[in-house]
Amino acid sequence: MKDQNQNILIIGAGLCGSLLALRLAQRGYNITLVEKRPDLRKTEQDAGRSINLALSDRGLRGLRLAGVEKDALELCIPMRGRMIHDASGNTFLSPYSGRENEYINSISRPGLNMLLLDAAEAMDNVKLVFGHGCKKVDLENAAAIFKDYESGNEVQYKGDIILGTDGAGSSVRRSMYEHRKFLFSFSQQWLTHGYKEISIPPAEGGGYRTYKEALHIWPRGEDMLIALPNLDGSFTVTLFLPYANSEYCFDTLTTPEMVHEYFNKEFPDAVALMPNLAEEFFGNPTGPLGTIKCSPWSSYGKTLILGDAAHAIVPFYGQGMNASFEDVVVFDEVLDRFEGDWEKVFQEYEKVRKKDTDAIADLAVDNFHEMKEHTASALFQQKRKLEIAFESEFPQHYHSKYSLVTFNEDISYFQAMKQGRAQDKAILNLLDDGTLTEQMTLDEKLKLVKQTTEAILHDDAVAKNLN
Amino acid sequence: MKDQNQNILIIGAGLCGSLLALRLAQRGYNITLVEKRPDLRKTEQDAGRSINLALSDRGLRGLRLAGVEKDALELCIPMRGRMIHDASGNTFLSPYSGRENEYINSISRPGLNMLLLDAAEAMDNVKLVFGHGCKKVDLENAAAIFKDYESGNEVQYKGDIILGTDGAGSSVRRSMYEHRKFLFSFSQQWLTHGYKEISIPPAEGGGYRTYKEALHIWPRGEDMLIALPNLDGSFTVTLFLPYANSEYCFDTLTTPEMVHEYFNKEFPDAVALMPNLAEEFFGNPTGPLGTIKCSPWSSYGKTLILGDAAHAIVPFYGQGMNASFEDVVVFDEVLDRFEGDWEKVFQEYEKVRKKDTDAIADLAVDNFHEMKEHTASALFQQKRKLEIAFESEFPQHYHSKYSLVTFNEDISYFQAMKQGRAQDKAILNLLDDGTLTEQMTLDEKLKLVKQTTEAILHDDAVAKNLN
Repeated sequence: MKDQNQNILIIGAGLCGSLLALRLAQRGYNITLVEKRPDLRKTEQDAGRSINLALSDRGLRGLRLAGVEKDALELCIPMRGRMIHDASGNTFLSPYSGRENEYINSISRPGLNMLLLDAAEAMDNVKLVFGHGCKKVDLENAAAIFKDYESGNEVQYKGDIILGTDGAGSSVRRSMYEHRKFLFSFSQQWLTHGYKEISIPPAEGGGYRTYKEALHIWPRGEDMLIALPNLDGSFTVTLFLPYANSEYCFDTLTTPEMVHEYFNKEFPDAVALMPNLAEEFFGNPTGPLGTIKCSPWSSYGKTLILGDAAHAIVPFYGQGMNASFEDVVVFDEVLDRFEGDWEKVFQEYEKVRKKDTDAIADLAVDNFHEMKEHTASALFQQKRKLEIAFESEFPQHYHSKYSLVTFNEDISYFQAMKQGRAQDKAILNLLDDGTLTEQMTLDEKLKLVKQTTEAILHDDAVAKNLN
Repeated sequence: MKDQNQNILIIGAGLCGSLLALRLAQRGYNITLVEKRPDLRKTEQDAGRSINLALSDRGLRGLRLAGVEKDALELCIPMRGRMIHDASGNTFLSPYSGRENEYINSISRPGLNMLLLDAAEAMDNVKLVFGHGCKKVDLENAAAIFKDYESGNEVQYKGDIILGTDGAGSSVRRSMYEHRKFLFSFSQQWLTHGYKEISIPPAEGGGYRTYKEALHIWPRGEDMLIALPNLDGSFTVTLFLPYANSEYCFDTLTTPEMVHEYFNKEFPDAVALMPNLAEEFFGNPTGPLGTIKCSPWSSYGKTLILGDAAHAIVPFYGQGMNASFEDVVVFDEVLDRFEGDWEKVFQEYEKVRKKDTDAIADLAVDNFHEMKEHTASALFQQKRKLEIAFESEFPQHYHSKYSLVTFNEDISYFQAMKQGRAQDKAILNLLDDGTLTEQMTLDEKLKLVKQTTEAILHDDAVAKNLN
């Protein structure tokens, strides 16, 4: 059924688009990959501000599929747990798992993007076009109008199909929203918080100014600071802060004095590591935090959106990039089954995939609250301690919600959410009502947690099916 | 603090806008009420096609506040329960409540709208403008541009504030969405089903062709037909049917033969009552079913949206109009507290109200599934039977979810949802696992249901606060 000469126009050469281009070129399609920005391999990167992301099992699986996992791992720094910094400056490490081999990786976004572009460009059947911004997509004819930012001219590219991987502000998705010939469900939800990046430079003479192999968190109830390590010894720090309606918020932090007052009060141990705090605070933009969901993802069997264009999520589960790479894996599997019939491929892909991207979107918002509030709560810490004990002692028999989402790519996000939430509810209630006693063995505790989890899932199913 | 000379521009003179205009005029404001459509009091109404709605306690409370409840009740036909029509043509009445005085009312939308327009127009300080469609709102200056459909000219109206009550397709809301100077969370979600109206004319010589005082339902799993009575002896019937991907759907019902084949198969007893079935099926439009949520509802302390403009919901709980009228009650209460400071009024109104309109939106989607699937299921019917027994025997001590939502306006939609869902889950699980035995007295059963409901609410709270 497959036509080897088909042309695919991919719009957006970020992480998702460049991996997708590479994989579809490996399958034999002719790819034109068009990107709005200039070629980031030819633009100078500011090392101190290289943005990093958490790469974990689902993302690695996508890279493996395209044969670039090994190269990517060379850019990675393992992060084995959350290093919690409390208000008094004490730190303690909360591991991501009780299993040795389960950790996440800090990786540079531009570094990984360059790797993927290089691999795609090395294929004969991939053509890269930079500096062309998509203005409008003719959904029915798989044609798109771009503005060439160098010449200022408008150019049209066509394909047998168009795949839109142009990110959270997707122009392809906007064409679907504005099309009005079919019902397009759409949702954009903003958190009350924005974010701001600041850097911790490398130590004098090289090395890291704080513990390297962790994702650092300073949870402060409404606000939060996090930091991820970079290969050059620096950390990229991100402040999450309300825009308004709080003593300290982006609306009130308008002078270097206010910024220092706030940081000295809330994050004194971090301030010591950030020599350019106020300068960077006012020099860097304040970014919004949004979740985007929509449906349908495709139209006329001609155009499909993937990655952030279809399902942008907030960064608090470290799954944005991983979900996008997993999209490529799922799309590839659906192609194995239905190659030759794009309409069927697109519809089946959404049918298989959407409930999972909806789930990770919701989990990421949940984790926003968990990270800023609950990591500092006693009951939460008791729960994590018990879960780490389960995972260390019975590695085959217990996986926390975090582990199900992050380290178990054979379980879908949706299943991970369902199972993980039920487990959390079981443990929190058993701890809260004192049913898990000191006298019980760990084995007995695990049995009780499993029974309670099953009962919760059963009761929910009865109520859901008939309510 | 109140300035008696303030001018309020209300955009949209449907049910919500005309009640709001009346109430705010009663409070002393100068009102300009602008409507896109012609004055419906001067357009001939097609009696056989008068669209009707379910009016219940929350809506009546809004009408009472403005002194027009009594007049509205004269337009009402009580509907005491759901008359279920099964596939074999059997019918049985499932009461909405075990309490005598709890029922909903069928009322003509244009009839009620005319009543409200008459009452508003009778006030010296209300000016009505028809046939002017809002094109764009200047949010920062409370000014709006309208197209006068008669002259074709553009006209500007200004107020000290603008209240947008221009319905699900709100032009005021679109101005907020497109404004881009603040983050606007927005969601439009379409069901896979659309709807089509058909009529059951009055019986020859007057009277009703089927039982008058009920909301008739023909639940058929994926599809559903409902009918509400009109004062003239007719019923307005609505078919809810998938657009696509089904043997019988709007995409396949393209000939009179197909329509008759489908109706004869699924709704034979209804077909006998609808002499103009195919003609009306093809003459009337197919409408989409959507839920709209957004935030913020106001901008710059100058513009606020209410009613469907802020929270359009699907019709399956019969609460769309009731929620909009309750908006007027809540807005009036907030005015009592903060009159004189519009920004505070608008923010407090959203703070108090949004969680409730979100709740009724979700309940309405739930009820879509309940009506088309579950009203025909054995476990659901067992639950309803038990609840009706509780409500008859212990009227002060049990209120079903339906009753909490529909007949208990002192309980917010959000509370009604939380309590109602927990009760449903308790009863369904107790029935499913056989804990409610024949040997128990009704009193014992109620105690067990209440205990189980409390336990569910407690467990959810522990998991939610710390998860």
